[in-house]
Amino acid sequence: MRTLDLALIGFGGVNRALAKAIGTRPERFADHGLELRVVAITDLALGTLQAVDGIDLGRVLALPRGATFAEFPGGSATADSESVIRNGTAEVIVEATFTNPLDGEPALSHLRWAIASGKHVVTTNKGPIALHGAELTELALGHGVELRFEGTVMSGTPVLRFAREQLVGLEVLGVQGILNGTSNYVLGRREAGLTLEEAVAEAQSLGYAEADPTADIGGSDARLKVAILANEVLGAKLTPDQVVTVGIDAVSEDDLASAAREGRHWKLIGSAHREDDGRIVAEVRPRALAADHPLASISGATNAVTFLTDMLGPVTVSGPGAGRDETAYALIADILSIHATTAGLVRV
Amino acid sequence: MRTLDLALIGFGGVNRALAKAIGTRPERFADHGLELRVVAITDLALGTLQAVDGIDLGRVLALPRGATFAEFPGGSATADSESVIRNGTAEVIVEATFTNPLDGEPALSHLRWAIASGKHVVTTNKGPIALHGAELTELALGHGVELRFEGTVMSGTPVLRFAREQLVGLEVLGVQGILNGTSNYVLGRREAGLTLEEAVAEAQSLGYAEADPTADIGGSDARLKVAILANEVLGAKLTPDQVVTVGIDAVSEDDLASAAREGRHWKLIGSAHREDDGRIVAEVRPRALAADHPLASISGATNAVTFLTDMLGPVTVSGPGAGRDETAYALIADILSIHATTAGLVRV
Repeated sequence: MRTLDLALIGFGGVNRALAKAIGTRPERFADHGLELRVVAITDLALGTLQAVDGIDLGRVLALPRGATFAEFPGGSATADSESVIRNGTAEVIVEATFTNPLDGEPALSHLRWAIASGKHVVTTNKGPIALHGAELTELALGHGVELRFEGTVMSGTPVLRFAREQLVGLEVLGVQGILNGTSNYVLGRREAGLTLEEAVAEAQSLGYAEADPTADIGGSDARLKVAILANEVLGAKLTPDQVVTVGIDAVSEDDLASAAREGRHWKLIGSAHREDDGRIVAEVRPRALAADHPLASISGATNAVTFLTDMLGPVTVSGPGAGRDETAYALIADILSIHATTAGLVRV
Repeated sequence: MRTLDLALIGFGGVNRALAKAIGTRPERFADHGLELRVVAITDLALGTLQAVDGIDLGRVLALPRGATFAEFPGGSATADSESVIRNGTAEVIVEATFTNPLDGEPALSHLRWAIASGKHVVTTNKGPIALHGAELTELALGHGVELRFEGTVMSGTPVLRFAREQLVGLEVLGVQGILNGTSNYVLGRREAGLTLEEAVAEAQSLGYAEADPTADIGGSDARLKVAILANEVLGAKLTPDQVVTVGIDAVSEDDLASAAREGRHWKLIGSAHREDDGRIVAEVRPRALAADHPLASISGATNAVTFLTDMLGPVTVSGPGAGRDETAYALIADILSIHATTAGLVRV
């Protein structure tokens, strides 16, 4: 049994779900010859907690609302992520702080510090990967560490891993996806007759949409994911601002009515494909799909990606696009992948 | 560059598509450090052809209808599969003869001979795998060779590989799929108002259905695939006769009408799940799925499998369920997997 020491940077819903999975189902890892031990947690609201022999996850998860890590022996109410990442004993840094779509900070610094100090990294954070994925991948290669970010696209549903491992020997000509559950839910409710405002309010009341739904409705959340997909799957070097983006607020009552007459469904589609001159073009925009399109019937909060391949044609993976447990599973899959790779076994 | 020598057993549509892929796109393999060389082909109608330095695939593919391998130097009009498999120089035996759902022969013997003589095996043949998969897997383990059969379920669409490689760390609680394109097409056309007979005739005219559509309509084709899925994904030890099977001929006009009123869609669903006592139960039967079920909108010849998992919920893979190139890709993926495994790299 190998023990792998983790530092959790950010202790919101996703890293809490990971901590719970580690604490309550160790056999999920033991089946792969692995024991996971959390040796540090930092969080802007909670502070810093470190324990080289492993933190008692049950106690941390039971911390009452409003309390901080200062309640624990050796804990502090101040988040000192840089010191934990650079100087701590963790072998894997688990980055799950909030997404910043403008400059990727502070997650970007967390990732750079981790890689530069020779630590493996897993993250669910779209900001730094969409903005600086190529740089970070290069940096990881140079430092001989692994960088995984499956959870940046469609939570734990395998998409980046799927493209890398399952489509071996195929040429991927393009990729299309429904990458934002909120906008997909809202479009479905608009088809059912609600106005945009009514549908957004309903999505908010169900917990799908944020208080500020701009990133979902305007397409900028999907844009980050399309940039990541284009770069990972098609080998592009795109930044999010190169992804032409139109949100679902561009879909009018008339658009909905004419699609209904033709048996089509409006979906917010993120896509990328290779032009004849080799350039990769990526965009996010609402499209009225024919009923037999593989993405036409992806409804509600479900997400899906269709890979267009040369020999196999279109292949689609669909599953949850969000959720705490679902996103924490992406971290688990990434950690197991790093375990396999660094144990001398290489995925192809 | 490693050269891997293949023997193709059966030279129908699938192995022809493989030969074409090898001959016309060698970079598909060279990108993985692999050159594929076909050193033997046997076929009941064509005979036997062997060449230790590699067969000229262009010439073989251009053989006129009605001609046999006797036209080639050293070729013979008699298929001597046993000798080719046992005594030939191939390192990988590619079994793609016809499916025999009763005893799996002659493919079963081909596989046993191959394994017993220390050769790796890839096959698309459902018969021997559904009937004797556990025995063959055990036999391969004992002889230190690899056995792969991705193409037995949903052609080249990754299903068995997906379960093994992409759901790592998850508990799979059950599996449900649309595993037969012909019956799915026929059900869709019946929803559109055709009788069973009319829909079958249409499927035959489009090349979806065989002259004898019994295995598709009666569910026995799907039954073989469910047995393979249950055994591979859930670790069952089922034989096809333990899979309770009801075909789509059991769906009446009244059933279709009442489903239409409720917004449901009839689909032929193959499924397997673990009971509380640990027993795996598998069945094939038509089910009227609610519109938001992940399989409800899988239409026409597309196939799909939904994996029900503990932490990620339902995850679905959909893609082609048949086709020559699509099934040949399953062989390619399996060969690349064997290449990776036997080059000292192990998939996890």
